[in-house]
Amino acid sequence: MGYVYLDYRELLRFCQSVFCSYGFSETEAEEIADVILAADLNGIESHGVQRMVRYVFELSSGMVDVHAKPEIVHETPISAVLDAHNAMGQVVGHQAMRLAIQKAKTSGCGMIEVRNSNHYGIAGFYTEMAREEDLMGICMTNTEKIMVPTYGKQPMIGTNPIALSMPADPIPFLFDCATTVVPRGKFEVYAKRGDAVPVGWGVDEKGLDSEDTPRILHNIMERAGGGILPLGGSSEKMGGHKGYGLGMIVELFTGILSGGITSDQVYQTGNGSGICQSYIAIDYGLFGNKAEIRASFSEYLEKIRNAAKAEGCSRIYTHGEKEIEMRAERRANGIPVNEVTLQELHKIAEDIGDQAAAFPRIV
Amino acid sequence: MGYVYLDYRELLRFCQSVFCSYGFSETEAEEIADVILAADLNGIESHGVQRMVRYVFELSSGMVDVHAKPEIVHETPISAVLDAHNAMGQVVGHQAMRLAIQKAKTSGCGMIEVRNSNHYGIAGFYTEMAREEDLMGICMTNTEKIMVPTYGKQPMIGTNPIALSMPADPIPFLFDCATTVVPRGKFEVYAKRGDAVPVGWGVDEKGLDSEDTPRILHNIMERAGGGILPLGGSSEKMGGHKGYGLGMIVELFTGILSGGITSDQVYQTGNGSGICQSYIAIDYGLFGNKAEIRASFSEYLEKIRNAAKAEGCSRIYTHGEKEIEMRAERRANGIPVNEVTLQELHKIAEDIGDQAAAFPRIV
Repeated sequence: MGYVYLDYRELLRFCQSVFCSYGFSETEAEEIADVILAADLNGIESHGVQRMVRYVFELSSGMVDVHAKPEIVHETPISAVLDAHNAMGQVVGHQAMRLAIQKAKTSGCGMIEVRNSNHYGIAGFYTEMAREEDLMGICMTNTEKIMVPTYGKQPMIGTNPIALSMPADPIPFLFDCATTVVPRGKFEVYAKRGDAVPVGWGVDEKGLDSEDTPRILHNIMERAGGGILPLGGSSEKMGGHKGYGLGMIVELFTGILSGGITSDQVYQTGNGSGICQSYIAIDYGLFGNKAEIRASFSEYLEKIRNAAKAEGCSRIYTHGEKEIEMRAERRANGIPVNEVTLQELHKIAEDIGDQAAAFPRIV
Repeated sequence: MGYVYLDYRELLRFCQSVFCSYGFSETEAEEIADVILAADLNGIESHGVQRMVRYVFELSSGMVDVHAKPEIVHETPISAVLDAHNAMGQVVGHQAMRLAIQKAKTSGCGMIEVRNSNHYGIAGFYTEMAREEDLMGICMTNTEKIMVPTYGKQPMIGTNPIALSMPADPIPFLFDCATTVVPRGKFEVYAKRGDAVPVGWGVDEKGLDSEDTPRILHNIMERAGGGILPLGGSSEKMGGHKGYGLGMIVELFTGILSGGITSDQVYQTGNGSGICQSYIAIDYGLFGNKAEIRASFSEYLEKIRNAAKAEGCSRIYTHGEKEIEMRAERRANGIPVNEVTLQELHKIAEDIGDQAAAFPRIV
């Protein structure tokens, strides 16, 4: 598929103007656009502007409530539960992580559980908010059910990413991974190419290992059984029960602790998705001198990057390194947008007419 | 290899008497024996009485300091750092998790980082201490370096298990997993059987996928390069970078936050192993009504167990279910002990002579 490169700043302003046109304030619209573009900057196309069409649909159809105000329903000095009342996920995410950061600054730690939220983009965006305040950030979300538990054949768990950011120099640490072996978007890429997926990514409607990409995707869409495997694959031999357990831990920290719903119920009940999230900020000064801790972590990361490479490999990456390099490159040289997405963005611009900012330049 | 079954209570008393003979108090000796036998009760032979010979060696050679008293070197209402001063890992673990529990009860959360500790048995033992107090428990430890980072060929990270316990009815949740695809003990089992390990478990001295069990084990022992792969295997395709990142998160929570050392330094510097650990207890009442949260988690776990099974599979297990069934069975019918371990235990009994409790009955 062909790609064009759009100017980062102009694309950001364009997305912001789209969200303003749906009734968000300037600040809210900027928050939403920031998260979406952060995915493109990090090289995670699936969560970037290619989702604009989906977000616009959710807003225009009323699936997401533009005017909802997330409400604190339970609070302690180190914790809170927010009922997001079906607000836009990225707006909820900013508010929840800001609260976590505030509690971490005053009480050392802030753990915010959110229910009735919506898709919020990449989990790592919110952990980076904490890191920018010299805190450790942790974020998790449940999603639509798509992960099949070990020995099962029905999806019961989401892709359930876990993200963690920690300050380090010169390259901070950013871990942001689905607890499934791959996200659904990878299946879509293989399907477009006409390629079979590797054994260990998915199971068919009988719960058996399958390489049949279109069949697995079809089954997922039709809810016919089968789905994506947890990190580690279909059996305990390669550790599939570990990925499944990590997915369950995300369900616990999101749907359960927030008093919300688990992934098997997401998009199944009434209005909105019901997605639940967890936002944690920890002041690592709870454990001593921050400069010393930061220096020792930086040193260890450097040692890992400098360790002996496997034959045929030129680099060992620490987590976040690739993303940070890509951010710089894409801010300078533009965001790659595929042809289908480009057409979708043009259609969105047309629909909102005069309210749209100038369409971003191809660079 | 042949197994005999030893009475659980008598084996516990026997181990306790061994540790008393090395200078531990009755209480300390009971704490140590409790952790060791918990591994055997849970079916984790590698961490059970088969390690008695190693613990006895560490005590008799002075590698572990029987009389060391762990010291709080930094403290807040929700956190502490303990310098264990090379004390016995299980004694440290009890003390650290008791402190975490106490802080969770008074402040909602207790995060205890420990440096200069030693091998402490199964991480899940300590999370169960928190669960028994109706709290969530989390525990991590670094270990000797054995995990090769993605694209590397030298071990830089430990097996680095993560454990998490959460109350639920009728079956609590207990996740306790190495972040390597398998622990080293699995390689030893395959080596004894003369079997090749599956691709994705280990790499050779060049950092390339290898099925050559004796070679991988030999390389690990000789520090000749190569080692065990992270959960997800050798490449990003199957998510190896995720297991590697989880291993790094454990290093952060143990060696880094405690002001101690990372796995690449464990057993490399001066006295003792320098192993570091993290003990976290969270009162889930921080997020609302505990009975409601517990009930909703119990219901979700039940739903998972009752979900449709893959062809050829009769059960879906939730984490901890197998262990809890096995505990009951082994308390009743005895602990399986292999012939080599049996001889080692007889030798230990001889060496300490009259101080040993009666040798446990074969049942």
